[in-house]
Amino acid sequence: MITDPAYEVAPWSLYESELNLELLPQSESVFALSNGHIGWRGNLDEGEPNGLPGSYLNGLHELHPLPYAEGGYGYPESGQTVINVTNGKLIRLLVDDEPFDLRYGTIRSHTRELDMRAGVLRRECVWVSPAGRAVRVRSTRMVSFRQRAVAAIAYEVEPLDEQVRVVVQSELAANEEIPRATGDPRVAAALESPLASEEHFAGGTRLGLIHSTTRSELRMAAAADHRVDGPRATTQISSESGDDLARLTVTAVLEKGERLRLEKFVAYGWSATRSLPALRDQADAALVGARDTGWQGLLDQQQSYLDDFWDRADVEVDGDTEIQQAVRFALFHVLQTAARAEQRAIPAKGLTGSGYDGHTFWDAETFVLPVLTFTEPKAAAEVLRWRQHTLPTARERAAQLGLRGATFPWRTITGDEASSYWPAGTAAFHVNADIADAAVRYVAITGDHDFEKETGLELLVETARLWRSLGHHDHAGAFHIDGVTGPDEYSAICDDNVYTNLMAQANLVSAADAAERHPRHAAALGVTNEETATWRDAAAAMTVPFDDELGVHEQSAGFTRHERWDFDGTDPEHYPLLLHYPYFDLYRKQVVKQADLVLAMYLRGDAFTAEQKARGFAYYEPLTVRDSSLSAYCQSVIAAEVGHLQLAYDYLGESAMMDLKDLENNARDGLHIAALAGTWTALVAGLGGMRLFDQDPIRFAPRLPDALSRIAFRLMFRGRRLRVEVTRSTATYTLADGAPIEILHYEDAFTLTADQPVVRELPSFAHQEAPKQPPSRAPRRRKAPPAG
Amino acid sequence: MITDPAYEVAPWSLYESELNLELLPQSESVFALSNGHIGWRGNLDEGEPNGLPGSYLNGLHELHPLPYAEGGYGYPESGQTVINVTNGKLIRLLVDDEPFDLRYGTIRSHTRELDMRAGVLRRECVWVSPAGRAVRVRSTRMVSFRQRAVAAIAYEVEPLDEQVRVVVQSELAANEEIPRATGDPRVAAALESPLASEEHFAGGTRLGLIHSTTRSELRMAAAADHRVDGPRATTQISSESGDDLARLTVTAVLEKGERLRLEKFVAYGWSATRSLPALRDQADAALVGARDTGWQGLLDQQQSYLDDFWDRADVEVDGDTEIQQAVRFALFHVLQTAARAEQRAIPAKGLTGSGYDGHTFWDAETFVLPVLTFTEPKAAAEVLRWRQHTLPTARERAAQLGLRGATFPWRTITGDEASSYWPAGTAAFHVNADIADAAVRYVAITGDHDFEKETGLELLVETARLWRSLGHHDHAGAFHIDGVTGPDEYSAICDDNVYTNLMAQANLVSAADAAERHPRHAAALGVTNEETATWRDAAAAMTVPFDDELGVHEQSAGFTRHERWDFDGTDPEHYPLLLHYPYFDLYRKQVVKQADLVLAMYLRGDAFTAEQKARGFAYYEPLTVRDSSLSAYCQSVIAAEVGHLQLAYDYLGESAMMDLKDLENNARDGLHIAALAGTWTALVAGLGGMRLFDQDPIRFAPRLPDALSRIAFRLMFRGRRLRVEVTRSTATYTLADGAPIEILHYEDAFTLTADQPVVRELPSFAHQEAPKQPPSRAPRRRKAPPAG
Repeated sequence: MITDPAYEVAPWSLYESELNLELLPQSESVFALSNGHIGWRGNLDEGEPNGLPGSYLNGLHELHPLPYAEGGYGYPESGQTVINVTNGKLIRLLVDDEPFDLRYGTIRSHTRELDMRAGVLRRECVWVSPAGRAVRVRSTRMVSFRQRAVAAIAYEVEPLDEQVRVVVQSELAANEEIPRATGDPRVAAALESPLASEEHFAGGTRLGLIHSTTRSELRMAAAADHRVDGPRATTQISSESGDDLARLTVTAVLEKGERLRLEKFVAYGWSATRSLPALRDQADAALVGARDTGWQGLLDQQQSYLDDFWDRADVEVDGDTEIQQAVRFALFHVLQTAARAEQRAIPAKGLTGSGYDGHTFWDAETFVLPVLTFTEPKAAAEVLRWRQHTLPTARERAAQLGLRGATFPWRTITGDEASSYWPAGTAAFHVNADIADAAVRYVAITGDHDFEKETGLELLVETARLWRSLGHHDHAGAFHIDGVTGPDEYSAICDDNVYTNLMAQANLVSAADAAERHPRHAAALGVTNEETATWRDAAAAMTVPFDDELGVHEQSAGFTRHERWDFDGTDPEHYPLLLHYPYFDLYRKQVVKQADLVLAMYLRGDAFTAEQKARGFAYYEPLTVRDSSLSAYCQSVIAAEVGHLQLAYDYLGESAMMDLKDLENNARDGLHIAALAGTWTALVAGLGGMRLFDQDPIRFAPRLPDALSRIAFRLMFRGRRLRVEVTRSTATYTLADGAPIEILHYEDAFTLTADQPVVRELPSFAHQEAPKQPPSRAPRRRKAPPAG
Repeated sequence: MITDPAYEVAPWSLYESELNLELLPQSESVFALSNGHIGWRGNLDEGEPNGLPGSYLNGLHELHPLPYAEGGYGYPESGQTVINVTNGKLIRLLVDDEPFDLRYGTIRSHTRELDMRAGVLRRECVWVSPAGRAVRVRSTRMVSFRQRAVAAIAYEVEPLDEQVRVVVQSELAANEEIPRATGDPRVAAALESPLASEEHFAGGTRLGLIHSTTRSELRMAAAADHRVDGPRATTQISSESGDDLARLTVTAVLEKGERLRLEKFVAYGWSATRSLPALRDQADAALVGARDTGWQGLLDQQQSYLDDFWDRADVEVDGDTEIQQAVRFALFHVLQTAARAEQRAIPAKGLTGSGYDGHTFWDAETFVLPVLTFTEPKAAAEVLRWRQHTLPTARERAAQLGLRGATFPWRTITGDEASSYWPAGTAAFHVNADIADAAVRYVAITGDHDFEKETGLELLVETARLWRSLGHHDHAGAFHIDGVTGPDEYSAICDDNVYTNLMAQANLVSAADAAERHPRHAAALGVTNEETATWRDAAAAMTVPFDDELGVHEQSAGFTRHERWDFDGTDPEHYPLLLHYPYFDLYRKQVVKQADLVLAMYLRGDAFTAEQKARGFAYYEPLTVRDSSLSAYCQSVIAAEVGHLQLAYDYLGESAMMDLKDLENNARDGLHIAALAGTWTALVAGLGGMRLFDQDPIRFAPRLPDALSRIAFRLMFRGRRLRVEVTRSTATYTLADGAPIEILHYEDAFTLTADQPVVRELPSFAHQEAPKQPPSRAPRRRKAPPAG
């Protein structure tokens, strides 16, 4: 956790006013740039010191055997790990033969700024070498949103006092040494030297390296070109290349007032199928495009891309400048993660680090896609199309497990299951309903019926088939889904997990509905009326365990009868519990790692009464230890719904500060993209009270905690731009464009017409005593920082 | 499975009339000799061909890392594997420079005989070399019951037609090449060259090799001495040694009618602590003892040891000669496994093979110890003392898991947990009650109260503490044990497994009772009246799930509500199911790998009414696929109790033929010691109807299937020799010696006095329609073979 403020609070940027080498691993994640295809961690230009060198291409991975001391039928044999690809951001500097290395000499000033409107990372450093030479180094780095294969850097050095001789080495470097992963199972296994050289090139200002991976047999190309601007008389350029290194060297003698400026354009490509010449040409072509656009052109494109994004997606927060900054930081990184992923997965860490081996999980669909669907819908569609493309693998997996339809993997890069611990992998079948839910939500929000026909329907049908074969009717006709693991990973292999059953229920009904809407497409998938009838029947008969005595839902059958975890006897240092207690003990007791029933109350809020929600939240809150970054935001949403606004605000703060304050001490491995997305959700669905169930009208039930005076958010909804502004007393709904649309403000339905804002009063709330969390696990009570 | 009869049926021996090289791996297990300390597989004297070379010393093992793709808290990091130690049984022969190798030349005859009264393996072979030289080779091999460290071989060769020159090489050979283990997780991982040479010696007729293991840091010594008897004129002897081989070479020219005879005495020792000289001297001393006793002396000792054993342990069966042979074979191997183990474990395969890595499991206590306690009680006590010696490790394990008392390992050689799959390892806590049960039973059968005070009490107290901390009371006061795995490994991580709960209940009560009987010893263990009161309270409040609607016990909470396995849709080739279906699917459905509730109905028969037993058997029988060798015998026992005598007989046949017919196709890895013990139990507790619950009188309720005309069995009971003979109409009870004792014949109690047999009529039985097993899983209907 970062205790002192690391970054200054500013509405549109993340500004670091001095360099803390201790925090480099975390700040590399926070300052990472990505467009969803290329990811560059915020490593210093000169490469060292570093926490974790990281350059990633979405989907480019290596395979490795998964070892089992005792194997079992259906255990995945091959693991997948994202690899650190050729580093194109490396620019080393020598000042009078002394390496520019911040561990030596004197740093007079060092600032970094992630500019979320310009879409660049800026750095400025004044450094005095051990020999006493003072230089100013400035760099601006970007990964282009518009030119998917391109990243670029502008790099400048100037002497501050006297003449210096500088050498700048701009590199493409493969197989960098990276630190070994720790023993923590959640940290990605590091793979050593994963890239085998196939070709290298250096000529003029151009560099190129082509490599392939050994087991996964993927090929990648990295190419760079440069524009060099320095004193004509003294500036010299040379270049060279080897298997794992291509290097442009620029030397110059700079007088005070003179600068050496380097513009570096980098292009990447990778493929499982394309030949070496084809891939080389692809990278070279991208490079020519970038160079033609030029540095300023790339900056302009980036700015216009982001202007457009913020215009439809911005969230404003008055009264808490940290949250204001954090929610934009969150949206910016969610966008970076997905913008140009284009039929690739969204990894849990985006492309900001190698945590979780670069795998995608259910949180992409459940936590990240809702935000994208309201703000960058085409990126959400692409993720679901990627899932659709992996259906052949998912069907094979279902068949292997003796099930019908498709079984999507718990964790994967390629679509193949890569989870080696089945009680928290294969058994977590809810991922299938989560994907279906994302598809249904996408259609509900965008109204994109072509997508439903071409993609959504197939996802829904195959997952409905899975549920139908996974569950069964008992002798009284009730439908049960036994032996599965819900979102709470401190319970596993349970019968009738409420979250799973309710999500499966929606999945079954949505599949039947979609098949009715698209009968020809459904028929092509082999769907018959008899089949959809069995889906509806199973959905109608779905078991939802409820403890009548306590008047609360059982997270899973029998849960409320289990022994309570001994929270009072648990050392606060023993969190997260999974590192200090065996699974067997966690699984059999009442202790919740992350919102499970509470998440069901959000995503399937239509299946609970208001009283059930209040009682459920009150029951599960004292059991929930939040050992997962996936929890705080949904606790925030339901806390707001049941009337605990300060608690909702506290959880919002936790979700928002997850990475900026490194609350889980693992931001070094990459950002928690789902928690970032959750920050938006806590504001929009929590304080904004937004809900949307399938074809119902969109509903808002806004309410603000005492600390906030105003929030405003923008949404894309069925092709329209919608803006909601909430003050302490009113909500103002504005439709920027498009046909009129029905809106619910609490239970008050009205039709919103373009450019005719509607203002509604907020109802008053009775203050409710909030439930307590387990000792030492309460969220930090949030107070808004003084306005800056 | 062996389809053609492999062994001839004889009451006291197992006779193989010709060599089937295909069946060598299995026959090596069947013909294995052991005394519980040393184990020699029935490998051919000349070493090759072989299925699996095997020489074992009980407890001598190597460690290896246990790999996990995803680790977890409390996962064991180190595995243990029994190793193939120095082979002392190797005697190679050259006939006119042609190696005696049965894959070449012509076998005129080849017989092997395991003589269960003499305790030796005899072999006789007439072989014609490829060059046409005919020789007769005879060997007799033993592992001494009386001299624990000693094994011996008498080896003879004679020419049958003309003069031959023979070379006999008698060896000690370490680090033999052994075949790689298969991918089947149940087959032991083979470790290559586990022995590092420390010293070797050859001089005169003596040989010696001393080695140590690398990771486990154990030292072993093997020594051999010889007596050679051949034609004085031509017989020459030399010896030599190296790191992994010590060899005596005898050459002789034999005329027709002349013989070369070699008597080989082998001594073994191993230690974790003793110095090399000490261990060498120990082996040498044992060797001197053996040589002094001489071959005939060893034979005489062996015979007298076994005479004594059979006198108190023999079981007679009239009407089925195969069963007669099989039950003696079973008793002989159970004795071999345990006789001189002396504070070591009983491995699942005894010392007959390396299956299951040489680990011991709960079946030692639950299946093997009852037989030993009635026939060789001191061996049973030694196993329990071994458990007691491992208590420090078991206490540490409990502490690691957050529990009180002791947690014994699911599988182990050393006492450390070596199971790497916790749902079927750590979660199978019933092993602790099984150990407690064995201790209680030992005291009940032997009346050995010193043992109870010194050993039983501590085992009971520490396991009672475990149960008390593992379970909890619900708000209504019922005591539950959640999240555990019972004997049925096709269900795991269940709440309130009936078997576990009932065994834990008995454990808690027995611990409280024993503490009351031995207050001073209990106080030394920190037991207070308050503590025993909580044990009795938990036992009294123990939950035993019962499905009122179906009128049967639930194997575990919710079991009878689960989906039934699709038995009709399961390919008969897909058994055992665990090799063809994922655990998640097995666990959540009604399918039973091995008797679980049915085992509870046997071991805790006092907790069930007769009607519950009948209904329970009828309900679980169609769900039980018997994918474990641990199942048939208890199904036999309960089938007999509820009146299905033919079915009881069928299961008896299956248990009896498990290894002799290799029913599970894995006898090559070693014999199923627990199934062998079960054969005895199926006869004595099944057909004999013997039950003993703690301090109650011993009860018999004998009944015979149609095929059998008479069974008779002998038992040691509270220091007395008891004999029970059952015919079709009567049971005769005889007390050979000792004070009068109360016996129950059905509900009829009487006092049995020495040498005054009591005869009782058998009640008549109403024939009951037996329940059906899953398709293709019915036991083979047994018909007695024609009398030989």
